[in-house]
Amino acid sequence: MLLFDLTTRHGARPSPFCWRAKLALKHKGLLHDEKACHYSDIRSIGDGSFRTVPVMQDGGVFVGGSLNIAEYLEKTYPDTPTLFPDDPHHRYAKFVEAWVDTSLQPQIFHTLAYDIFLLMPDAEQPYFRKTREARLGMTLEEARDLAPSKLPAAQASFLPLRRRLQEQPFLCGDAPAYADYIAYGALKWQRLCCDRELLSDAADPIHAWFSHIDGLATAHAPTGS
Amino acid sequence: MLLFDLTTRHGARPSPFCWRAKLALKHKGLLHDEKACHYSDIRSIGDGSFRTVPVMQDGGVFVGGSLNIAEYLEKTYPDTPTLFPDDPHHRYAKFVEAWVDTSLQPQIFHTLAYDIFLLMPDAEQPYFRKTREARLGMTLEEARDLAPSKLPAAQASFLPLRRRLQEQPFLCGDAPAYADYIAYGALKWQRLCCDRELLSDAADPIHAWFSHIDGLATAHAPTGS
Repeated sequence: MLLFDLTTRHGARPSPFCWRAKLALKHKGLLHDEKACHYSDIRSIGDGSFRTVPVMQDGGVFVGGSLNIAEYLEKTYPDTPTLFPDDPHHRYAKFVEAWVDTSLQPQIFHTLAYDIFLLMPDAEQPYFRKTREARLGMTLEEARDLAPSKLPAAQASFLPLRRRLQEQPFLCGDAPAYADYIAYGALKWQRLCCDRELLSDAADPIHAWFSHIDGLATAHAPTGS
Repeated sequence: MLLFDLTTRHGARPSPFCWRAKLALKHKGLLHDEKACHYSDIRSIGDGSFRTVPVMQDGGVFVGGSLNIAEYLEKTYPDTPTLFPDDPHHRYAKFVEAWVDTSLQPQIFHTLAYDIFLLMPDAEQPYFRKTREARLGMTLEEARDLAPSKLPAAQASFLPLRRRLQEQPFLCGDAPAYADYIAYGALKWQRLCCDRELLSDAADPIHAWFSHIDGLATAHAPTGS
């Protein structure tokens, strides 16, 4: 089993969507290798139809998209631990995904866009600049200058997660599952892309939640390049 | 069965939390009366321990808080339609609640605070001003003047809901349930408190979702004052 993951110029792997897929594989105890890609490599995966990572190859099957990968694993390996406890239609996980994709990660991205740009290899920077400036509605340099003013909104975007973690250790209850991995990916991405601490309150329950999942994420690192 | 609901000076009932409880009762087909309260009336309900509404009285039992009411009804009337389909631990509903309470409603509130103030009876306005100015960190008049600049953030806060409704008619699947009622309450509140349209795209799937639930909410209006 092989996971295609996005890499930076220094070999870091910050993609929040790839972290979701990596944790889904670990959750199920499925050994896999990882293959580092740049944006420009993605069209050479499988039949050439993929435009984003993660993409997972399982024998002759290619699956693209983090939730699709999680759902494929759930269906194909039914004897492994479930990623969607008490969530047969995956509605809870899909709502958490909608919240992370449209609220949490976009708010973080405003504060992080220029940092990510600097992490890209020279050859990848023009693609990143073009697509991300269109998304931001401003240049990356303008986003960098505005980043401090965007910090309060990024911090506030964690409120729904914090509210739930004040009542139970994980979004999925006493143990983490896919909904947790979705939210984890956002914070892992932020931490791998810059040194600024986004959540400075040491008593924030998000810290213990993050550390536990981070232990799962970094244990038994896969081989591969 | 009696539900204590918040009223304005003109008799409107905008409280988003009370809408959650009213829809929970209707969902289960439980007939109830409603009793209109102002803030200053709340301490006279039951044993005097309640500080917010909704409060529900079921015979000699008083239950306060919208989610507590939904969970009480679910437990006490197990033969009625479930409010938490495929969600035995209510984790999905609780996450939606956390998102609505900490993100959606606070973003809307910035644009609505002064409108709500004007709807309060004179005698209730000092309490509202004191508590809400503390929450806003500014005067109600400052909030009114800033409201247009807060509109984009309030509109953006609907993105997770819209993302899900692009794939299925209700947050809970093919039919609405408690998670839908939580989000509905926020938009119902906004519409009852001001005439400004928050979501102007006629093709927005939120409109059809809202209309369907609004039909449930306003059918068979309970008696009571």
